[in-house]
Amino acid sequence: MKHEDTIRTVAAREGVSVEELAARVRAGRVTLLHNPEHHGVVPCGVGDGLAAKVNVNLGVSAGFSSLDEELAKLEASLKAGADTVMDLSLGPDIRTVRRAVLERSPVPVGTVPVYQAAFEAGYDGGLASMTSAGLLRVVEEQVMDGVDFITVHCGITRSSLETAARGRLMGVVSRGGALLAAWMKATGRENPLFEQFDWLLDLAAATGVTLSLGDSLRPGCIADGSDGAQVQELVTLGELVGRARARGINVLVEGPGHMSLDQVADNVRLQKRLCHGAPYYVLGPLVTDIAPGYDHITAAIGGAAAVAAGADFLCVVTPAEHLGLPTRQDLVDGVVAARIAAHAGDLVRLRARAAGRDEAMATARSRMDWETQFSLALDPERCRLVHSARAYQGESGCSMCGEYCSLKVFKEGVQSCAHQ
Amino acid sequence: MKHEDTIRTVAAREGVSVEELAARVRAGRVTLLHNPEHHGVVPCGVGDGLAAKVNVNLGVSAGFSSLDEELAKLEASLKAGADTVMDLSLGPDIRTVRRAVLERSPVPVGTVPVYQAAFEAGYDGGLASMTSAGLLRVVEEQVMDGVDFITVHCGITRSSLETAARGRLMGVVSRGGALLAAWMKATGRENPLFEQFDWLLDLAAATGVTLSLGDSLRPGCIADGSDGAQVQELVTLGELVGRARARGINVLVEGPGHMSLDQVADNVRLQKRLCHGAPYYVLGPLVTDIAPGYDHITAAIGGAAAVAAGADFLCVVTPAEHLGLPTRQDLVDGVVAARIAAHAGDLVRLRARAAGRDEAMATARSRMDWETQFSLALDPERCRLVHSARAYQGESGCSMCGEYCSLKVFKEGVQSCAHQ
Repeated sequence: MKHEDTIRTVAAREGVSVEELAARVRAGRVTLLHNPEHHGVVPCGVGDGLAAKVNVNLGVSAGFSSLDEELAKLEASLKAGADTVMDLSLGPDIRTVRRAVLERSPVPVGTVPVYQAAFEAGYDGGLASMTSAGLLRVVEEQVMDGVDFITVHCGITRSSLETAARGRLMGVVSRGGALLAAWMKATGRENPLFEQFDWLLDLAAATGVTLSLGDSLRPGCIADGSDGAQVQELVTLGELVGRARARGINVLVEGPGHMSLDQVADNVRLQKRLCHGAPYYVLGPLVTDIAPGYDHITAAIGGAAAVAAGADFLCVVTPAEHLGLPTRQDLVDGVVAARIAAHAGDLVRLRARAAGRDEAMATARSRMDWETQFSLALDPERCRLVHSARAYQGESGCSMCGEYCSLKVFKEGVQSCAHQ
Repeated sequence: MKHEDTIRTVAAREGVSVEELAARVRAGRVTLLHNPEHHGVVPCGVGDGLAAKVNVNLGVSAGFSSLDEELAKLEASLKAGADTVMDLSLGPDIRTVRRAVLERSPVPVGTVPVYQAAFEAGYDGGLASMTSAGLLRVVEEQVMDGVDFITVHCGITRSSLETAARGRLMGVVSRGGALLAAWMKATGRENPLFEQFDWLLDLAAATGVTLSLGDSLRPGCIADGSDGAQVQELVTLGELVGRARARGINVLVEGPGHMSLDQVADNVRLQKRLCHGAPYYVLGPLVTDIAPGYDHITAAIGGAAAVAAGADFLCVVTPAEHLGLPTRQDLVDGVVAARIAAHAGDLVRLRARAAGRDEAMATARSRMDWETQFSLALDPERCRLVHSARAYQGESGCSMCGEYCSLKVFKEGVQSCAHQ
């Protein structure tokens, strides 16, 4: 697909004009996820003026899950409405899983190449044997496979690592960041993804892969939210975005992590300022640490606040976060929660352009037109199930209020309140 | 329990000084829920400087549920951490259910007396036969039964109803409000709860019941959020709070409803301004209309934003909202979601005073001390279940990342990444 066609496809899907979208892409405020090597992928636009997107993470963990299960998760996530997927597999089947996901996914696929590089190095005596060249070779392999976007933890440096080591409660909680940090400590060398950033830009320019600048130092708990290490890394990421922009290359910037609710909007505004308006891809933010088992809700709270403040892309947090590898149902619950957050945020940042479906739902609701309500809901199946399991026997209304439905009472007046 | 004892009990539970709490109560910024006729109830403080509270609604709906099921819901809700319960039963068993709930509930119990009054009037030819005296008689009966707080829709008046009728998409979605509105339209009379507000204040002064000033005109959809009808009612409620304050009587004020996320904090600040700092009890707010089946999440997003801005009391919205009468599991899911929202908000409004549990969780997490994590979690049982269902066989970590756990990698360095 040529660049013009990509723009046209995305503009049509988003309901914005081609000119408007092209201008935002030129300004680096919208990034198009689309690697031409990923055959059959429908490009996805992320950024300013577009609906906020939702990414879901898949992937086998050494000893857990299987290719079949991950493909079933892919299917369930797409059905639930995920806009992109990342394959975070880490183990011997990493290539097989990635290629199968790429083959089956009509939405852009992301990866974190350092996982494969670290895993492969492990066979030769441990992570310390990983080399800069080996890491870049893996990056190249994945991009040639058709991966649409890659998380590259370019912002963690020897100096930011020192800041993080001082006075942080939870250290480095990003897995890719921790692998690089451990490697940097063991070898005494600088982060290859930082040192070789120009090489990454060359690769992006040559292939169309999107670099997603990972935040290795995202806070892992409320106590670490918006600390020096996090902000220092964001400054570095902003400089890297500037270098990418100078070459006309659009990137994504990744963000937190755990932070209290009042810090979320400030963080988004700071990212937009420091990163020249580049699209912001956030995990959570998780606005409390005490709700494991329900972190899809914790993340929905932070995610909605982030999108309302200008964040563009939410990474799904599932109910299993902090506890174990998510099941298929966990992923579905996570996707729906993130979609709620994205839409609640879009009602703020896109205003009337996002409000049509809500208004149609309200109209259907006031008419007690259940079929239309189901069809407008984010999860029609679930609505139908809940409603019919407790079906009201009257002509309209539902089992919650029965004949005392406020809508009926207000519309039909006192007649509806006489007992038969 | 004498007033001084109530203050002492609440202060101890909240970790604030007796003097500080007493001053806030005198200023009307904290309301104590406690009807001495409710034997065995533990008083609950709601308002400024106290942890945000969570109320769950129970109640049989004509033809749905049973006393046994509602009592099971009460037990499940208390176990999930509800701070108060409201019995919203509407049907022939209304007295039986209320008295059973009062007998078994150690937490304050609320009701909406107009439901009973409307239901009983129904037997005599319909709602229009309800009289002002009949309604007040029901209020009195419920308070004598020991109800700790009652929702009284005092703010809906003939003039605000006219405003609502103009240009609103969804009219009146509060059930109590709709009953009063229908009665007012049918009889041409003014709202008895507005006209007889002094009588209600006398009752509150004599018994210790708390008046919770209901918002009949809360918006029922995003399109109606923060409209003239809603704001006009809030002005009226503010005037009524002023009359209560003049007599040294503390009340609660109830709030929305559906509104976009950016309106939530503004609404809370407006309520605090117009209502002289009275505690604010909000339903939701629901920040989108398109997520039936998941409205506990929609409400958690709005609720967290509301508490962060100063709201004091959240009414649980369950996943069954807009679809049917909630099951026991729906109530539990709703309570947990509301508790997450309340705590996320408290991390903002109470700062360090609310953060201890999060910090302890982060410490346990960084030590991979699972038992402590479970004990600190809002729902230890669920955490244990999710974790053990996917137990990692290694010494520490979990099935999500296995040996590539970021915490292990960062702490133990490259050794942890060599394959055995």
